[in-house]
Amino acid sequence: MIPETYRCVVLARYIDGLPGPDDFAIETRPVPTPGDGEVLVRNIYASLDPGGRTRLSGEASYIPPLSIGDIAGAFNIGQVVASNNQAYAVGDLLAGAFGWSEFGLSDGRGYLAKIPDWELPLSTWIGVLGVPGLTAYFGLKRVAGISAGETVVVTSAAGMVGATAAQIAKILGCRVIGVAGGTEKCDWLKGELGLDAAIDYKAVDDLGAAIDDAAPDGVDVLFDNVGNRFVDALLPRMRMNGRIVVSGQVGDYNLASKDVHGIRNTRVFITHRVRMEGLVVFDDIADFPAAQAEMAAWIKAGKLIYREKVYDGIESAPQAFRDVFQGTYFGRHLVRMAPIP
Amino acid sequence: MIPETYRCVVLARYIDGLPGPDDFAIETRPVPTPGDGEVLVRNIYASLDPGGRTRLSGEASYIPPLSIGDIAGAFNIGQVVASNNQAYAVGDLLAGAFGWSEFGLSDGRGYLAKIPDWELPLSTWIGVLGVPGLTAYFGLKRVAGISAGETVVVTSAAGMVGATAAQIAKILGCRVIGVAGGTEKCDWLKGELGLDAAIDYKAVDDLGAAIDDAAPDGVDVLFDNVGNRFVDALLPRMRMNGRIVVSGQVGDYNLASKDVHGIRNTRVFITHRVRMEGLVVFDDIADFPAAQAEMAAWIKAGKLIYREKVYDGIESAPQAFRDVFQGTYFGRHLVRMAPIP
Repeated sequence: MIPETYRCVVLARYIDGLPGPDDFAIETRPVPTPGDGEVLVRNIYASLDPGGRTRLSGEASYIPPLSIGDIAGAFNIGQVVASNNQAYAVGDLLAGAFGWSEFGLSDGRGYLAKIPDWELPLSTWIGVLGVPGLTAYFGLKRVAGISAGETVVVTSAAGMVGATAAQIAKILGCRVIGVAGGTEKCDWLKGELGLDAAIDYKAVDDLGAAIDDAAPDGVDVLFDNVGNRFVDALLPRMRMNGRIVVSGQVGDYNLASKDVHGIRNTRVFITHRVRMEGLVVFDDIADFPAAQAEMAAWIKAGKLIYREKVYDGIESAPQAFRDVFQGTYFGRHLVRMAPIP
Repeated sequence: MIPETYRCVVLARYIDGLPGPDDFAIETRPVPTPGDGEVLVRNIYASLDPGGRTRLSGEASYIPPLSIGDIAGAFNIGQVVASNNQAYAVGDLLAGAFGWSEFGLSDGRGYLAKIPDWELPLSTWIGVLGVPGLTAYFGLKRVAGISAGETVVVTSAAGMVGATAAQIAKILGCRVIGVAGGTEKCDWLKGELGLDAAIDYKAVDDLGAAIDDAAPDGVDVLFDNVGNRFVDALLPRMRMNGRIVVSGQVGDYNLASKDVHGIRNTRVFITHRVRMEGLVVFDDIADFPAAQAEMAAWIKAGKLIYREKVYDGIESAPQAFRDVFQGTYFGRHLVRMAPIP
């Protein structure tokens, strides 16, 4: 049964600082009828991605900024409910990018991938096997090119990207230090994830000194999800040919650019031949299936685990998005809008 | 005739800020007799390298810091005057790293290369075909991987590294914008070097806006010799998959680390997949001969030109080193200590 209307969350004003419910509005719209070549998707999950923050202040991210009244961007898991596109049949489960919306319409172009029947929970396809997990995978494998025996520091290590990166680095034979805020997160990193060390950045006066204690011989790879302050603290600890993967900047997204920490410790770029490079995972889209197959095997073997914080109903998205930046919960933040088929 | 004594310039105190004559002392030492496997070299030229600055404040560079009383580091062109090493004969002309010193002793290890008889001025081997020229070559070819049609910005473009990089980028089919201080330098960049644009950073209020005028479609490669302030101004102008080659930091070497400009515009590392990477040219030492052959052909064809500022006598090195940072002259700064054979 396709309803006559659906709800979505739109941008009510350009956001300054920490996002909150007043920045968004919930709208009810008529469910569209798919035209020629189009497919109508009922969304089951929508993601809450810190990286989506930049587009909400009228600035370009790796995709153009949103206008006021646009549906807030997000990734989704959904099911086809009507199709005029031969590639998709009613009942197909898809990963796509429809935003904070109960329904989505696609002409099949852009990010729209059928979910294979690998007997994994549906939410894995928007989490550990979705954009955050693939960011971890390609950030370590392609951008950093990590090798067994290297020392890897992961920031925001209890988030979905960070926790996946930390575990992949362990699986690939690295020594891994996680940085996170709070004892609960650090206990999880050391206990359940088995990292070699976890640093509670809120509990240490000097992050650099804490890194020195945990990695006295220095750091080969910094997989950073937080931003300039942590990068600057880590730079003097980078080993020869060290790599900094700029995966996310959750600590900087809500700051005016004058308030962002300035990176000063750049001398090591020359002395230690450090390389710093960012990624947007869609550059690797052709390699998603192979990466997902490798990660799925790790999940089934119990080597790669994940945490989720699931909110109910599309109306919860604005507050849930605020929670992401406040670090109240950890793991992948998702909104569920329809029952799992 | 080998004299009984020679003069050298040693570090008299760790340097704070701009280096000057009081930071160094001239010593007279007995000329050593080469032992087994050793070779004695009379230096003809010594270089004045801004990159040598960091080692003079007790900090490690890509090689360990100097101690008080050590000979100041530099590259040299010299001639073998006595040899107990089968690989080198009296009369051989060599490029090496003996420092600000009239003589040097080597066991043949480290950087010591015979100069081929290519009928080029001897000073080319410490300049455009030496460390600065090779830094330009490998910075563009290996680190940046430049392609014809790309837009390249070179800072400190009237220096030996910068001018060589700017010309190589032109030879390889790029659009090249040079940044330098003063009209004389900029006139030379546009006139004799034929760059597409030259920006006098001392004459513009806003370097970023000046870059926007010269490169309205953005910048593919920043070949930076100056440091954080220019990198930060260029970052928002970088195009997709842009590369920043950290070749030198002449604007930052004399600053206390708290006074170094902090780089804030790091968002483009993700949105535009920017890569920033430093180099020390000796990582490419196995490829020096092929690079030098290619560059020598460009020199002979008149496509690659260079400027020199030659000082007479080893005693002039401390003031000459100060001049390097003050930008009084431009091109390769050299001290000549013996006649050209």
